[in-house]
Amino acid sequence: MDEIQELTDRILAFREARDWKQFHTYKDVAISLVLEATELLEHFQWKSTQEVLDHMEGQKREIGEELADILYWVLLLSHDLDIDIKTAFLAKMEKNARKYPVEKARGTHKKIYRTL
Amino acid sequence: MDEIQELTDRILAFREARDWKQFHTYKDVAISLVLEATELLEHFQWKSTQEVLDHMEGQKREIGEELADILYWVLLLSHDLDIDIKTAFLAKMEKNARKYPVEKARGTHKKIYRTL
Amino acid sequence: MDEIQELTDRILAFREARDWKQFHTYKDVAISLVLEATELLEHFQWKSTQEVLDHMEGQKREIGEELADILYWVLLLSHDLDIDIKTAFLAKMEKNARKYPVEKARGTHKKIYRTL
Amino acid sequence: MDEIQELTDRILAFREARDWKQFHTYKDVAISLVLEATELLEHFQWKSTQEVLDHMEGQKREIGEELADILYWVLLLSHDLDIDIKTAFLAKMEKNARKYPVEKARGTHKKIYRTL
Repeated sequence: MDEIQELTDRILAFREARDWKQFHTYKDVAISLVLEATELLEHFQWKSTQEVLDHMEGQKREIGEELADILYWVLLLSHDLDIDIKTAFLAKMEKNARKYPVEKARGTHKKIYRTL
Repeated sequence: MDEIQELTDRILAFREARDWKQFHTYKDVAISLVLEATELLEHFQWKSTQEVLDHMEGQKREIGEELADILYWVLLLSHDLDIDIKTAFLAKMEKNARKYPVEKARGTHKKIYRTL
Repeated sequence: MDEIQELTDRILAFREARDWKQFHTYKDVAISLVLEATELLEHFQWKSTQEVLDHMEGQKREIGEELADILYWVLLLSHDLDIDIKTAFLAKMEKNARKYPVEKARGTHKKIYRTL
Repeated sequence: MDEIQELTDRILAFREARDWKQFHTYKDVAISLVLEATELLEHFQWKSTQEVLDHMEGQKREIGEELADILYWVLLLSHDLDIDIKTAFLAKMEKNARKYPVEKARGTHKKIYRTL
């Protein structure tokens, strides 16, 4: 079975067993995504890249959990909105490739990343 | 090949071709995750669930792109931090299952979702 | 003395006494603003407007603290960037008034709020 | 008249003239606060403190507008929730002073800032 479907099925089974779908409005789920993303960001605040590296060993499991939480909501919301996230991802990568052609984008900073 | 590795490889090839790794501090990448999550949230602001449904047809591709952007940064950051996101995800699901046992959590609102 | 200056002076004295300015890069301070804003948002997640009202009495002090935290960082960052926040605010209100003339904007939803 | 009341009155008159209160659920207003905070953060992403300083001249007005937008929502939400933001702010500063006594907090990094 496909991995993404496999992970999504895990989420759906978890939710179904607890009868939680009733609470999952799109808006509140999208808020969860933002909240989890900011929890992740908090790990890197007030730290230089070197300080992050120094603390990584102790924080790796915790940061992995934050990333897992974000993935959880991405997969759940994609499912609820009937969006095939893999197809959407590949389509976006094609779009990014057209938007940032290698010859122009190579090694260039600018504020291009934001609009990925 | 595994799907998650396949998508990650797409990201790494994209970045390598543009020589963008030099800009990807953990902090700035985590900021990207937050910014993309808020872009997604913006689609649901000032709308009821019904209004979201009414507008979904026109917005589905755009929302799919936002979800893809979030997934992009989740996979990229997991790679850079040497975190196996699938393993982290499955471990977190086990933890969630212990934290919210079916018999106690079933149909219960509370502020349990936040801490997923 | 002006109130905004008065509150700003409180912040600066607090920071000076603790010698914390050395940690306040713009980026990390802006991250604090986002983190505090999401803490506020968390109070309203998974709740209808009526449920918020029902819980307000117990949460009022806590929500007031979140709003105070946001104001703290707004005033601190304005100071550090040498931005007169009152002047900036009044200028923005003028701009908003031009952007949303009463005759056109009255009672209209649309996605106008976002761009305030 | 007090400055904070003066600015709040400007907001209320602006809103009243456009009949926009009907759209201002607490949740959506809190989302606005988050969205504006992330717009501010975006100005500092992918930039070192020095790069921010180099670009400040050109961005100062724009950053001032973002800060003004955040203040707008802080004052509006405080009003709607019947929270006296100045009182809440001063109470929070007292709490912060107790939480971070000068002798202990002076010059100390730690993750104390987050919980301000």
